[in-house]
Amino acid sequence: MRAKYIPADICIGVVGLGLMGSSIVVALLAAGHPVKAIAPLPAEEAEAPARILAQLQHCAAAGLLEAPIEDYQARLIISGDYHQLKDCRLVLECVIEKQDIKALVYRRITDVVSDDAVISSNTSAIPISVLQEQVLHPERFLGIHWAEPAYATRFLEITCGVQTAAKYADWVYELSRCWGKEATLLRKDIRGFITNRLMYAVYREALSLVADQRATLEDVDKSFRYDTGSWITLMGIFRRMDFNGISDYAAIFRTIFPTLSNSEEVPMLMQRMVDIHAKGIHNQKGLYEYTAAEAREWEAAFALFNRDICQLAALYPEEELHATESNGQSL
Amino acid sequence: MRAKYIPADICIGVVGLGLMGSSIVVALLAAGHPVKAIAPLPAEEAEAPARILAQLQHCAAAGLLEAPIEDYQARLIISGDYHQLKDCRLVLECVIEKQDIKALVYRRITDVVSDDAVISSNTSAIPISVLQEQVLHPERFLGIHWAEPAYATRFLEITCGVQTAAKYADWVYELSRCWGKEATLLRKDIRGFITNRLMYAVYREALSLVADQRATLEDVDKSFRYDTGSWITLMGIFRRMDFNGISDYAAIFRTIFPTLSNSEEVPMLMQRMVDIHAKGIHNQKGLYEYTAAEAREWEAAFALFNRDICQLAALYPEEELHATESNGQSL
Repeated sequence: MRAKYIPADICIGVVGLGLMGSSIVVALLAAGHPVKAIAPLPAEEAEAPARILAQLQHCAAAGLLEAPIEDYQARLIISGDYHQLKDCRLVLECVIEKQDIKALVYRRITDVVSDDAVISSNTSAIPISVLQEQVLHPERFLGIHWAEPAYATRFLEITCGVQTAAKYADWVYELSRCWGKEATLLRKDIRGFITNRLMYAVYREALSLVADQRATLEDVDKSFRYDTGSWITLMGIFRRMDFNGISDYAAIFRTIFPTLSNSEEVPMLMQRMVDIHAKGIHNQKGLYEYTAAEAREWEAAFALFNRDICQLAALYPEEELHATESNGQSL
Repeated sequence: MRAKYIPADICIGVVGLGLMGSSIVVALLAAGHPVKAIAPLPAEEAEAPARILAQLQHCAAAGLLEAPIEDYQARLIISGDYHQLKDCRLVLECVIEKQDIKALVYRRITDVVSDDAVISSNTSAIPISVLQEQVLHPERFLGIHWAEPAYATRFLEITCGVQTAAKYADWVYELSRCWGKEATLLRKDIRGFITNRLMYAVYREALSLVADQRATLEDVDKSFRYDTGSWITLMGIFRRMDFNGISDYAAIFRTIFPTLSNSEEVPMLMQRMVDIHAKGIHNQKGLYEYTAAEAREWEAAFALFNRDICQLAALYPEEELHATESNGQSL
């Protein structure tokens, strides 16, 4: 489908230039937008240019850029000064998941942008309806939740809070086609949106199996990698059911549902990770053990894998294979 | 790791030549085993040779065969006669998920195989400990659960029933390296093994979101395809947590767990599928709508995708990247 908008005409602001924020900046640049990138922390302002350049080089290597890297850099301003945001039609907040810090950021954004700018959060932890109470124009506030790396994934969740006006969500949804996204648009704000709810349902069951010593971490990882991984990118959950002939599922639901974990407790293993300040490959303390070299190998492996899986996924475009109507709402 | 066994010396039997059974036959042939394939139903006996040939051709096209297809066909006997199984060291049952039919099949197998043969089921619906009660030598009975297509996925779940002797599970585990599998070995029989438990936890939440009209089928599918799909094949669940820095999960568990579905009911949408005899793409009645042509497109797309994802996954072998020890049991 042809995009309705010309990205070069729409300036977008990004506030917060950590890993995710930088990656979103690159996604927007690659789509053709002028981008004002605000680093609230001096350390971020210092590190962002090199990180963004490296990510633009990844994009170029993966064939995602049409022009030389310099052209994209020329459309980017990195600054600690919120006044840079004044011409932005849309501002994306991606600072840490603390409500008071986000509130402060929204105030600073609101002070400079025009009255018709849309403000959004990349949060996956705080409900949009809650964050919305912190802004001057809640009807123009919504959630835009990206997957890492933002420039090389088709995932995007657009979520309305209770006060969000539908037209702004629709505008972002249309605009996101220019970003190469196949967005989901949630009209109602639900805790964890879709993807986190689904994955936390898996985590709950997986951690329960591990806690009961019925499976090891390795077993769980193998199971998801080799079974689910062999079809999920093409089909998703419900399409796979249709593919598998659908008729057996109901009987298995009946026997398996009553045996699944319904725990509401933080699993002991995860609490233990918090207690030992585990940051996984980032400080080589995690569910698995790592040397510094192994941690780097994982980063390198994911960069390569991600490029390949994106290219593979792109061979199966939404609009051709997935165009058939679902019966979900009518049945 | 070098395999301990020489597949050409180990004859394996497969009973039930539906889609899954045929695909298992091909996996075993490709690994170098002589295979006795028993078709309990005349229709299966008639259809199996062509289907198996087509699957061998897929294997050859994907570079999974070392010798000409004829060499593999020469090691295969397809028959309706259980006596063919008499020299088999291992027999894999893959008939429909009905306990009485499986019991009859086990009786026929037991009548002809030697006393030291191992018998297994591909069931994912009936506990191994239950099926085990139907056989003469329960200590030599276990679950071997494959993913479709069996010849092009690394997934395998080996599951002990309460009476299974560990040495037979260990033997199958070692043997499965010759099949190109990275098996999980469950010493205790749990309902749904690992992969079904994890996926049914997702289905429960996904169907609850759809039932409450908080998400559409398409939204759920997009979410899993574009987010989870972009990393799952490389990392699995727990490795991904380490990759993401792990520290945020505990806080999100606390807020999200109490909001997840704990339903034990068969979801209405799935019951409706049973009521209308939906078989998805196979009869063009399912969660999505299909024409006959669209159904064929999905089959073709999956065959291609599956070849590609297997080749991609093979670039990241278990033994190099995943060799680090987990801390799961010790913490």
